[in-house]
Amino acid sequence: MSTNQKQAPVANGAAPQFALSSRMSTGRAMSQDVWSIFNAANLPADCINLGQGYMNFPPPQWVKEAADEALNTVAGNHYSHPKGRLRLREALRDHYSPLFGRTLDIENEILVSSGANEGQYSAWVAWLEPGDEVILFEPYFDQYLPSITFNHGVPVYVPLHPPAVLDKNQTSDDWKIDFEELRRAVTPRTKMIVVNTPHNPVGKVFSQEELQKIADVAIEHNLIVMSDEVYDGLLFDDKPHVRIANLPGMWDRTITVGSAGKSFACTGWRVGWLIGPKSLIGPTLAAQTRIVFCTNSPLQEAAAAGLEQATKRGYWKQQIDEYTERRDVLMKYFDEIGLQYSLPYGSYFVLVDISKVQIPEDYPFPETIKGRGKDFYAGWFLAQELRVSSIPVSEFYCDEHMNIGERFLRFAFCKDLDTLHKAGERLRGITKFMGQ
Amino acid sequence: MSTNQKQAPVANGAAPQFALSSRMSTGRAMSQDVWSIFNAANLPADCINLGQGYMNFPPPQWVKEAADEALNTVAGNHYSHPKGRLRLREALRDHYSPLFGRTLDIENEILVSSGANEGQYSAWVAWLEPGDEVILFEPYFDQYLPSITFNHGVPVYVPLHPPAVLDKNQTSDDWKIDFEELRRAVTPRTKMIVVNTPHNPVGKVFSQEELQKIADVAIEHNLIVMSDEVYDGLLFDDKPHVRIANLPGMWDRTITVGSAGKSFACTGWRVGWLIGPKSLIGPTLAAQTRIVFCTNSPLQEAAAAGLEQATKRGYWKQQIDEYTERRDVLMKYFDEIGLQYSLPYGSYFVLVDISKVQIPEDYPFPETIKGRGKDFYAGWFLAQELRVSSIPVSEFYCDEHMNIGERFLRFAFCKDLDTLHKAGERLRGITKFMGQ
Repeated sequence: MSTNQKQAPVANGAAPQFALSSRMSTGRAMSQDVWSIFNAANLPADCINLGQGYMNFPPPQWVKEAADEALNTVAGNHYSHPKGRLRLREALRDHYSPLFGRTLDIENEILVSSGANEGQYSAWVAWLEPGDEVILFEPYFDQYLPSITFNHGVPVYVPLHPPAVLDKNQTSDDWKIDFEELRRAVTPRTKMIVVNTPHNPVGKVFSQEELQKIADVAIEHNLIVMSDEVYDGLLFDDKPHVRIANLPGMWDRTITVGSAGKSFACTGWRVGWLIGPKSLIGPTLAAQTRIVFCTNSPLQEAAAAGLEQATKRGYWKQQIDEYTERRDVLMKYFDEIGLQYSLPYGSYFVLVDISKVQIPEDYPFPETIKGRGKDFYAGWFLAQELRVSSIPVSEFYCDEHMNIGERFLRFAFCKDLDTLHKAGERLRGITKFMGQ
Repeated sequence: MSTNQKQAPVANGAAPQFALSSRMSTGRAMSQDVWSIFNAANLPADCINLGQGYMNFPPPQWVKEAADEALNTVAGNHYSHPKGRLRLREALRDHYSPLFGRTLDIENEILVSSGANEGQYSAWVAWLEPGDEVILFEPYFDQYLPSITFNHGVPVYVPLHPPAVLDKNQTSDDWKIDFEELRRAVTPRTKMIVVNTPHNPVGKVFSQEELQKIADVAIEHNLIVMSDEVYDGLLFDDKPHVRIANLPGMWDRTITVGSAGKSFACTGWRVGWLIGPKSLIGPTLAAQTRIVFCTNSPLQEAAAAGLEQATKRGYWKQQIDEYTERRDVLMKYFDEIGLQYSLPYGSYFVLVDISKVQIPEDYPFPETIKGRGKDFYAGWFLAQELRVSSIPVSEFYCDEHMNIGERFLRFAFCKDLDTLHKAGERLRGITKFMGQ
């Protein structure tokens, strides 16, 4: 057999070169992502991290205890069923059946995944044919994009439009889909729409009316909806959480995504789940079985304990009260400073309009920032000068729509009150850099 | 926009239909896999499970303690770096650097994965272009096949040839690659060769000479080698473990795969790792970051503790002694019964030649068995009649080569001695079904 034609043989002593899969050069897969640029290692040592969305507090003790119990058994240390452990699937059934208005079938309608992210990835493996289009509302959770392009899918972007000018009367409710724009985005190759409510990073909770309009498009064009609802336990001000799967005709075409990490303050446990009809969950299970085989066992047991006990311990309400206080503490500082934000009704993020921040023209920026949106410059500048980090929102838009996002920085308030107060004190220093 | 042309609109009241990704109908992805057919739920209630390869004993207490300690911190419950936790990467460096004869770089040459399986999947995402060919030696670990086809790769099969007749003088060493067959399998589209030593299911430990011949082919045709060495802690009779990455010219083209689950009896922790050059690990990290983001944190800490303490606690030697005894106990029963097997020098599996077993012609078999290899019939029959389950080996061959595997059942001996004795006593009943 002749020498491989695609790959040149190795010159004497030189390291071999291999052709990378072409999909690795699409979808920003190999470019330095925002998390690496705004990583603690690149920021001042004592910077307060309001960038990444993980808590600086632990999960409840009574949830962790179930992990310890599982570690003290034999089976709790060995393979789980690829569908998820029976106890967790039963706990998910008991928790979610009333929320979906149907008795969920633990064999066919619930799939435990290795984090919500991997569950979504598996659904894309199962359902995307090369060239299939997936509609994403911008700003979108940045993991969606490469997950789609790795599976040879094509992302199609529909922006949420923020109010032209933020003022105190406007909130995350006022980020709007232009439904004509959505309809124009549908083509014969459209396969899926991704919905995210409560929304990261906007903090928007979609209304029933908005979800119905999305559902109408999905039904008319026979599309699958992937509804990322990982923040479904974090809604404020009595905002109702509407599940698109519950709208007429939608159950059979919707995969709903949930997360133990978001629900129980344990982002590092990597336990998530998908809920949907057998027709959608079955092939997704077949894909997931080959990608990760199964999810870690002891932390599935702990997540089960969390779901089993949360309601009777008053955990859900307490958690909402605590997050509402966290949100309000941070907002109060922005009010004092005079920076507008769009009040979040869900998730643990707030978008702050940083148009007023003026950066000295000669300020030194690293190469990784140069050529990015204004928000990258502002985020870097504030992290260096005030020692509070955030995440630039233009990262969550396609190149064409990046200008919509670059007015905003995302601040995470999944932090204890002391940290939020300390961050707020530091952020007061922004006024030095604000014009008018 | 007109109605989606690829997907028929939904008739009144009928459930919607969606086109499954075509790759889900290749590589046996949706067919009932051997694990489901030989699942405990389908077998007699008191069946002893020597089928699936998980232990019926727990990981060491001192390894589990580190998981408890991590659960009692804040950071140990939250996201890890996608590369893996620093402590685990340092422990891997300290354990593996002497074994690879180089100081491993924890930033670029070590990648912690959510089980060895997911690490391999990520490498295929990073490196396979549609149509790229991957050479698998049969029998192959069955997860490889759909992992390749999900990424639009094409598996190419090269069988290990067992001795024509097994006798007491032949062992797992005598399963041989025909190197001319290997060379004929290489085409201009060949991208990778998968090596697995110690080998599941054969129990073969590849010799330096055999690995050198594979390396020669890889270097000549500029191929990547994925070397699955998850059983590298389980070698018997002082058999040396040769790492193909250590052969001249191979480091730069080899990804070596390892597993905490296999090393510390915790298959349900889902902690594995890849070791290789920056050029191969970097893109694999980029893929993995989007598939699972990161691996669960507390069990990474525990795996780190395992690697840190194993040598000074004498754990590696003790584990080999225990597995040697387990192997020998089970083999002794097959000796008494008069069934030939090929003595394994590594892993925790033994292949037993069941040609002599005679199944009554009118024996009832379920539909899932019908049309499969003779080993499926024998495995089912023995599980029902003797209440010991095993796994048919033809599952690990392509259709064309299935006849090579159907002489064998795979028995796992990663079980405590009591269970192995009990299984052996039951297996004595085979003699009733053996001719002569």
